[in-house]
Amino acid sequence: MDKLKVSLLGATGMVGQKMVRILSKHPYIELTKVSGSPPKVGKKYAESVKWVEPGEIPEEVAEMRMSSTDPNDHKDSDFVLSALPNEVAEEVELKMVKEGLKVVSNASPFRMDEDVPLINPELNWNHLELLKHQGKRKGWKGLMVKNPNCTSAIMAMAMKPVLDAVEHGRIHVTTLQSVSGAGYSGLSFMAMVDNVIPYIKGEEDKVHRESEKMLGTLEDGKVKRRSLDMEVTTVRVPVRVGHMGIITVETKAEVDIEEVKRTLRDFRSFPQHHNLPTAPKAPIILREEEDRPQPAKDLGVDDMAVYVGRIRYSGRALRLIALGNNLVRGAAGITVLTLEVMREMGLA
Amino acid sequence: MDKLKVSLLGATGMVGQKMVRILSKHPYIELTKVSGSPPKVGKKYAESVKWVEPGEIPEEVAEMRMSSTDPNDHKDSDFVLSALPNEVAEEVELKMVKEGLKVVSNASPFRMDEDVPLINPELNWNHLELLKHQGKRKGWKGLMVKNPNCTSAIMAMAMKPVLDAVEHGRIHVTTLQSVSGAGYSGLSFMAMVDNVIPYIKGEEDKVHRESEKMLGTLEDGKVKRRSLDMEVTTVRVPVRVGHMGIITVETKAEVDIEEVKRTLRDFRSFPQHHNLPTAPKAPIILREEEDRPQPAKDLGVDDMAVYVGRIRYSGRALRLIALGNNLVRGAAGITVLTLEVMREMGLA
Amino acid sequence: MDKLKVSLLGATGMVGQKMVRILSKHPYIELTKVSGSPPKVGKKYAESVKWVEPGEIPEEVAEMRMSSTDPNDHKDSDFVLSALPNEVAEEVELKMVKEGLKVVSNASPFRMDEDVPLINPELNWNHLELLKHQGKRKGWKGLMVKNPNCTSAIMAMAMKPVLDAVEHGRIHVTTLQSVSGAGYSGLSFMAMVDNVIPYIKGEEDKVHRESEKMLGTLEDGKVKRRSLDMEVTTVRVPVRVGHMGIITVETKAEVDIEEVKRTLRDFRSFPQHHNLPTAPKAPIILREEEDRPQPAKDLGVDDMAVYVGRIRYSGRALRLIALGNNLVRGAAGITVLTLEVMREMGLA
Amino acid sequence: MDKLKVSLLGATGMVGQKMVRILSKHPYIELTKVSGSPPKVGKKYAESVKWVEPGEIPEEVAEMRMSSTDPNDHKDSDFVLSALPNEVAEEVELKMVKEGLKVVSNASPFRMDEDVPLINPELNWNHLELLKHQGKRKGWKGLMVKNPNCTSAIMAMAMKPVLDAVEHGRIHVTTLQSVSGAGYSGLSFMAMVDNVIPYIKGEEDKVHRESEKMLGTLEDGKVKRRSLDMEVTTVRVPVRVGHMGIITVETKAEVDIEEVKRTLRDFRSFPQHHNLPTAPKAPIILREEEDRPQPAKDLGVDDMAVYVGRIRYSGRALRLIALGNNLVRGAAGITVLTLEVMREMGLA
Repeated sequence: MDKLKVSLLGATGMVGQKMVRILSKHPYIELTKVSGSPPKVGKKYAESVKWVEPGEIPEEVAEMRMSSTDPNDHKDSDFVLSALPNEVAEEVELKMVKEGLKVVSNASPFRMDEDVPLINPELNWNHLELLKHQGKRKGWKGLMVKNPNCTSAIMAMAMKPVLDAVEHGRIHVTTLQSVSGAGYSGLSFMAMVDNVIPYIKGEEDKVHRESEKMLGTLEDGKVKRRSLDMEVTTVRVPVRVGHMGIITVETKAEVDIEEVKRTLRDFRSFPQHHNLPTAPKAPIILREEEDRPQPAKDLGVDDMAVYVGRIRYSGRALRLIALGNNLVRGAAGITVLTLEVMREMGLA
Repeated sequence: MDKLKVSLLGATGMVGQKMVRILSKHPYIELTKVSGSPPKVGKKYAESVKWVEPGEIPEEVAEMRMSSTDPNDHKDSDFVLSALPNEVAEEVELKMVKEGLKVVSNASPFRMDEDVPLINPELNWNHLELLKHQGKRKGWKGLMVKNPNCTSAIMAMAMKPVLDAVEHGRIHVTTLQSVSGAGYSGLSFMAMVDNVIPYIKGEEDKVHRESEKMLGTLEDGKVKRRSLDMEVTTVRVPVRVGHMGIITVETKAEVDIEEVKRTLRDFRSFPQHHNLPTAPKAPIILREEEDRPQPAKDLGVDDMAVYVGRIRYSGRALRLIALGNNLVRGAAGITVLTLEVMREMGLA
Repeated sequence: MDKLKVSLLGATGMVGQKMVRILSKHPYIELTKVSGSPPKVGKKYAESVKWVEPGEIPEEVAEMRMSSTDPNDHKDSDFVLSALPNEVAEEVELKMVKEGLKVVSNASPFRMDEDVPLINPELNWNHLELLKHQGKRKGWKGLMVKNPNCTSAIMAMAMKPVLDAVEHGRIHVTTLQSVSGAGYSGLSFMAMVDNVIPYIKGEEDKVHRESEKMLGTLEDGKVKRRSLDMEVTTVRVPVRVGHMGIITVETKAEVDIEEVKRTLRDFRSFPQHHNLPTAPKAPIILREEEDRPQPAKDLGVDDMAVYVGRIRYSGRALRLIALGNNLVRGAAGITVLTLEVMREMGLA
Repeated sequence: MDKLKVSLLGATGMVGQKMVRILSKHPYIELTKVSGSPPKVGKKYAESVKWVEPGEIPEEVAEMRMSSTDPNDHKDSDFVLSALPNEVAEEVELKMVKEGLKVVSNASPFRMDEDVPLINPELNWNHLELLKHQGKRKGWKGLMVKNPNCTSAIMAMAMKPVLDAVEHGRIHVTTLQSVSGAGYSGLSFMAMVDNVIPYIKGEEDKVHRESEKMLGTLEDGKVKRRSLDMEVTTVRVPVRVGHMGIITVETKAEVDIEEVKRTLRDFRSFPQHHNLPTAPKAPIILREEEDRPQPAKDLGVDDMAVYVGRIRYSGRALRLIALGNNLVRGAAGITVLTLEVMREMGLA
């Protein structure tokens, strides 16, 4: 099988570095270009990056010269993966797809565009069908696929099997989000240590609307969003990595909690059925211990999985706690997995 | 006005130390005895305590000799304040009240006993009327008054004015609780730093049931609990001091959010009307900033107040975030304030 | 006594806020102007500052309109206190003194200028005599007084009584410095939590050279620096406030450790003899416990004092550990205390 | 090659768990018995341990039944590895060696016994020769080998090549030690977060004396300790894993700093020459960046190596900063590596 050659935009950020790490060991995706902001262009990657990933920079990447974000610099790449900051992503990515490049992006612009698939592979890989019409509808020569916000990615994974299985009313979500979600330099030590900040700008709305899109159904070449009566509160806690969600689903009829657990534990989808390299063995791992999941104990091993625990049911309220690695399941890993799905579907 | 002489049980613990500090500056309550576990009896307080309060031990207390928990050692005290650990409190306090001592306690045993008032002064000072019948019903020569669990104390303060003002359905509470709530040595650095533990043994039930009792009404010499449809999830976060609650109240009719804010802001009660020394000026302080309350910014000044922010209303869900100092409003301060109320009511 | 009217430059930074707090309760120094960078000029202080000090902004300051750093804006002020960032301080302060203003500054430029006194009040208040010649030598109409770097201020306080008392050789200093020393936003949570960074740009040299100047002697209207054979390593640790130093002084003859302790404990100077309002009762507080000083236990009470512990002597190496509040003793407090000394000396 | 069967004492502690992890992937050491304190005997390992290692318990160990510490329970084991707490190690290990068992131990008792080799494999593997005489001198049927204290292990590794290469005088060591060095539950969150504790009981003396023994030479079947003029201060910092040392070596003549760097970088020893499975490729890794080594950046990859940076030389003081993983290089890994050396030498 020929290797897929990919460019990486935003390669020096924390999520970009995580993608560099994941791709350095990839069986068939080969990172051939890294790009960054103008002052970095032409320099070696090793000299452009403030490397924060554990371990050294993969040798073959360390020596690469930084490309620009000009589409012409990426004509040789089969795909362009984007870990661009949201502020610059819109303009750069749009130029790319207009010029014929194929972009799979973790940045927020276009996520809610109805012609752009918003992919969390296990949940809605089939939404990639939107791509059949995207070029014509948008007048794009290339194509664009988006991944959800890190919190949306993790919470939607834990919610979908449940919401598919039970007739439900309102959903209450309170998240405890790690500091890496704000970027490596997003929050100062002084502001965050020994503190809780009960507000993350724009996040609550994203979790709600992106979940509605990801859990939507494909009808007549369009994604029909699933209307969810959801109230979300997002809170920052002094933890490095790992977003947790306290989720309550009001059910309309009695549900069998053991049945719910089975549904979560047995959930498998396209990435598992096709044994994709970056797919978790099981997308949802149930923790039966009363005090799990915990970032310090559950993360660091299979970081593409979402950990779910404390499943309780009373008063027609189904409650659970979900946890995922926001940098891997919520960002770098999901982008790579999306490309793997596309290749498997013959879209790459 | 004569000073009230009080003994302090559990004087060497973290909450006990906080009481020592509060009482050291008290206008009319005088700490005359400190007691601890058998190996400490007879030693100086300064030699018995692993002092963790900021600043030095108040001089007059440092030199006191530790008393036992034998009731006979406390016959000269007008009151006995208790910061005993829950495990030993039941036996010690019971012996005390049987022997005629008057106990105001922060420990959990007897909190849900229907003859024992569970006092959060601003909310239910009038429940102290139970004391009229307590002796006869229990066969106690002394009397016993309880304070709520630290989380219950703070959450109930934020909820009561709202629940009194609006017709409501289910209440959802997710708490983010500080490590001091588990005692000074309750959680190791290794277990808690850079981590979130989504479980606190027994806590969820306490918040629910104690709230029902504190918000109950006095009828025919008894407290009729207020039935609350409440679901609670309690989570430990890596913060030293300060318990936060994310509270959602489902309302039955539309409410005016400005009216709710006014209700919270204007809430005053017995301790304020009588200018009690340990009472906060306003029991609830509203923060209008979008990212408040925060432990690092709101605590440390008036720690008897509860801070409330992020008041939102949509879909008939009234949402707010409450924060209080668990060692002061949730423990040491509330005990002292309760005794001040009792004196003001002529019960002390 | 008439109040001294002072302007505060850099009033919105973390050290500036600490000065606002200290001055808000000052008996005879009155903060009349606050200034900040151009975009803030004309706005209310409360709207210009990201307030991080515990408690609310003092009311009288909250409503002040921000001034510029133009000397003309400060003609009515008796003194200008400066908490400016180092990058802008040189130009602004120079313009001020040329225009006749009297500046007492915490910023680093000019600290090593031989005509500018570098004052740590208890150690070298008499160096203020340099001011007699400063105007003539520099051609300044106003005057300029500097305070040392936060680490230098604390370490020099602990060292001076010892170095004055014993004949010594090399001095070894390893510092463990808190994150606030880098400014409120100077270090990210991700970079610093659960980490130690064994390097602080420029700091090691500052501690050495500033100590030599502060411990120098006044001869013929000049400060003769004291040559110190000192090796310094400065390390950043994940602590909010408090700089610690592990200090070893090689002595040339045997010293009596009890004598050293007495020297430290009994050290008093001009600010104590004159009972200045911001002076610590004793500038050095000895901790005899084997595990002190500690930021969590020693700071927060008398933050103008330096805490010294673990005094040991063997092999002609005198060892001790010093700790001080870098924002108070190391910055805001020392500036205010310097002004108090100047007034007492008739220089203000 | 036949597998070595080993028992593990203290298997449920944090260091014991780390050994379980290391051995679970070992090519020729097979963990066949795990033992713990009396209440655990007979239970499954998975039920006896509070597992804190990342990832799940290795399956084959999870199901093992806990053995006692009675020597008879370990007669089938080729070796007994010990991660016992110091308090119980002396009695248990002594009984074992008297009964003929071969013990390699990380616990402190017997470390300074002149007949017991104290092995840090790269530094003094040849001290294992002591074993030739141990049985006769001690009257032991088995044998006992010790590993150094975690701090000693790391600091001695960084110091030995330097001390061998340059003529030196006094050595100054200040350590910044992580919390895991005190055991998983050794320090509470409240005591340690946002704090520095400048004292670790007994540690300073251990670092000094154990270094003297490890760096000693073998003469006439005995280890002649190397006399080191060393002053040590050990400090606890709020970091999970990683002990750092600020080391200054006073040299007697001028040294070439590039030569020193080369010496450190090129250092290799028995474990490297024999390609032992647990040996680091290079025992010392030089970091040339000005702000390294750092626990957050250097640990987690090759945790058997010691990282050294900030090498400076002036005034005949050679200064460097060393960092190592106290649980791996300082404890579990060194024990396993010692056994590998023994096997390679034909002692196992």
